Amino acid sequence: MPDYRRRAARESMSVRLDVNGMMAEAIGPGESQTGLSRGEVDALAPRTLEVARLLHSRREAGELPFYELPQRREMATTVQAAAAAVRDGLDTLVVLGIGGSALGTRTLLDALGSSGPRVVVVDNIDPVTMGSLLDGLDLKRTMFNVVSKGGETAETMAQFLIVRERLLRELGAVDYQQRVIITTDAESGHLRQIVNDEGFRDLVVPAGVGGRFSVLTPVGLFPAAIAGVRIDELLLGAAWMDTRTRATEVWQNPAHLLATLLYLAETKHQRNVVVLMPYSDRLRRFADWFVQLWAESLGKAENLDGAPLHSGQTPVAALGATDQHSLLQLLIEGPHDKVVILLRVEDHGRELSIPSAYTDMEGVGYLGGNGLGALLNMEQRATELALVQQHRPVMTITVPQVNAFTLGQLFYLFEVATVFAGGLHRLDPLNQPGVEHGKRLTYGLAGRKGFEAQRAEVDNWMGRKRAEYVL
Amino acid sequence: MPDYRRRAARESMSVRLDVNGMMAEAIGPGESQTGLSRGEVDALAPRTLEVARLLHSRREAGELPFYELPQRREMATTVQAAAAAVRDGLDTLVVLGIGGSALGTRTLLDALGSSGPRVVVVDNIDPVTMGSLLDGLDLKRTMFNVVSKGGETAETMAQFLIVRERLLRELGAVDYQQRVIITTDAESGHLRQIVNDEGFRDLVVPAGVGGRFSVLTPVGLFPAAIAGVRIDELLLGAAWMDTRTRATEVWQNPAHLLATLLYLAETKHQRNVVVLMPYSDRLRRFADWFVQLWAESLGKAENLDGAPLHSGQTPVAALGATDQHSLLQLLIEGPHDKVVILLRVEDHGRELSIPSAYTDMEGVGYLGGNGLGALLNMEQRATELALVQQHRPVMTITVPQVNAFTLGQLFYLFEVATVFAGGLHRLDPLNQPGVEHGKRLTYGLAGRKGFEAQRAEVDNWMGRKRAEYVL
Repeated sequence: MPDYRRRAARESMSVRLDVNGMMAEAIGPGESQTGLSRGEVDALAPRTLEVARLLHSRREAGELPFYELPQRREMATTVQAAAAAVRDGLDTLVVLGIGGSALGTRTLLDALGSSGPRVVVVDNIDPVTMGSLLDGLDLKRTMFNVVSKGGETAETMAQFLIVRERLLRELGAVDYQQRVIITTDAESGHLRQIVNDEGFRDLVVPAGVGGRFSVLTPVGLFPAAIAGVRIDELLLGAAWMDTRTRATEVWQNPAHLLATLLYLAETKHQRNVVVLMPYSDRLRRFADWFVQLWAESLGKAENLDGAPLHSGQTPVAALGATDQHSLLQLLIEGPHDKVVILLRVEDHGRELSIPSAYTDMEGVGYLGGNGLGALLNMEQRATELALVQQHRPVMTITVPQVNAFTLGQLFYLFEVATVFAGGLHRLDPLNQPGVEHGKRLTYGLAGRKGFEAQRAEVDNWMGRKRAEYVL
Repeated sequence: MPDYRRRAARESMSVRLDVNGMMAEAIGPGESQTGLSRGEVDALAPRTLEVARLLHSRREAGELPFYELPQRREMATTVQAAAAAVRDGLDTLVVLGIGGSALGTRTLLDALGSSGPRVVVVDNIDPVTMGSLLDGLDLKRTMFNVVSKGGETAETMAQFLIVRERLLRELGAVDYQQRVIITTDAESGHLRQIVNDEGFRDLVVPAGVGGRFSVLTPVGLFPAAIAGVRIDELLLGAAWMDTRTRATEVWQNPAHLLATLLYLAETKHQRNVVVLMPYSDRLRRFADWFVQLWAESLGKAENLDGAPLHSGQTPVAALGATDQHSLLQLLIEGPHDKVVILLRVEDHGRELSIPSAYTDMEGVGYLGGNGLGALLNMEQRATELALVQQHRPVMTITVPQVNAFTLGQLFYLFEVATVFAGGLHRLDPLNQPGVEHGKRLTYGLAGRKGFEAQRAEVDNWMGRKRAEYVL
């Protein structure tokens, strides 16, 4: 295909960000609880420019390797080879992972998975779920993909220990080794050591790419490849969004604009909740993926200088049209503390026409002749305007179709937006120091050596509880 | 069983609310961003007493019929008979419903459904989901339960029109009539008229019980009964919680205490987000049910006198331990604007022991010898304390086991708490006026007569959009 035609094809498959509903022109003048003004955004230009340049130079220095993932075509080749090597005769791939090792994969499978073996993601340690899954597996036709960059995630390792013992018992040591593929750091961590010691198949999480930015690494790509997802198209989509998010001028960069508007909404307009509401069942999990990305990256106690910050909008995953019958009442009438992002799919790829019937019943008959997907999109548009009319800020992201190319764009758009928002807040979007203490308390309770003091902290807390506060 | 033994059995299966982590003793003195003081709660006593009395008299007057649902044993009998009449030879029950007609049912199925035919809830109008569901059904062995109290919910009626045409085409008019059971109002609405005209089986949503309070009516009970849920136990559990939530003194009433603490957190401590985080996959959907209940009931623009209010905490559904790797960073380090409610299951009903292995690896070996469910509960406790230590308010609700009796308690606990919170805010928790306008805009777009002006509003909005705000 000639370049201009390829470019035209990509343009027609571009994900578009529409921020009209954020602006004062739509929802009212620039007071604290209404729309943003163009001037307010432009006044931030020195800062947005500075952050854009800083991120650019950090990218050039190799400090933000997630930016380069779409270009790493060799990763796709490796993953495809690994998938091809195990796919024959495979019934089920079970992914053992949690958080960033599960959410992107889930999103890919729900949006695009179709052909190929069943892929199941076990992202919790509920013994009922885990037990009934294991009960139903034919271990000879199952593979387990153990995913943990650090190689010692408690939940994942606990799952692995259970699976390992079951495999050894039922298949023996030789076959056991064939039923496991491990995705972890190239060099360090217990899982890497286990790969080295026991000779498992393995895949590598690139250095410097944390869990919530890892969907476009083997973490997400391998299970997706097993499920028949076009991972080359996924990376092409991300690469296309990369070309669209390089401008330093905020009004020419959808990721930076998205981040800037959310930043202003949070810091200047007290909007501490952001709702992501896809109007497509297949994109439902994308909202869950976004929740982790936004919450862990931007919910921080301190900025880069160690000054108190306590930043972070609460991301909320919703689903259109379903949650029009759940959250919408609050979004329309509740506190002026939210931004809503609607995701609209132009072409659902399938349509069901609603037959005409009961034409004498005024409240039913009008439906006939419409398409079901068309009705879904009408509801998206109606909700957008209903929010605008109640002076509630709303953005709409339009996705031409749900496919690997557009999903790649969506992942990359939000990843770049997240890092840019981190830059505006002057925080580190790549760490998550707040969860460490809870892990240490769990170590104490689970009897890990060296964490006796943490166990004592929990005992002390339970002992301090007052009986009259338990009903 | 003698009464005292029955009572003891119920006590041992009681759901318990632990509010220690909300209080100043645990998380710090009663300043705006820390814990509640006992005095602060007691200072509200005149108001809590007044609301308790008002709700009691409204209940006595029959104005709040959801309160009486646990006593309506005849409802369970009717539902059981309806389920028995259709269950033979049934492969799949498809529930067509949305919002309150779906969320409670989903919760019941996920928590308790096991035996019996498959039950699928279609709560959206995504043509891909609906199409692939219909593709895979054997219509002769499928029943469709159309659920809408008002009888003209657009999404549900659109689904019904599609299903109806398919049934008529493939099975003919006689069999078609046997494949549908309609749950709607006893007297009014299009669905009631359709029942009367076409002779469908039907079930009744009791008068005065809105969608989000309808899980303990045939809306939730019928699909649950098909799935083998002990609906008698469910109602007994709700009745048990009824006996526990009748005290007028707030410190003796778990539902009123729950509501009062959340009310104070919202109105006096700027905590406008409430996270419900069950540590059990089976209770995951309960959090979704809670989201609708809390958001639609309490997110209101006006109080009962028509004065501006804009109340409503944003409810967020989470899952433990999974979301410790997603939301928790924000909960620990982000803004002081949240209350977290953890749900803990004491006995998961099944345990998997984690085998000992890799004992030389310090970050893995400690896991061996623990149970997987025990580890899950350790994580709950660790998260509770980690929140407390960061001065973050947290409640823990303990559920002895996940069964129909405890789930009935949970539903009723939160329903009573919601109505009580509505009383404290002096708002109407039973309406949802904010969603009407969006529905009318959809009618306009879908070509319903009399809504031409609404279509013009949407056209006008689309025409007003500025191209430079779309990237």
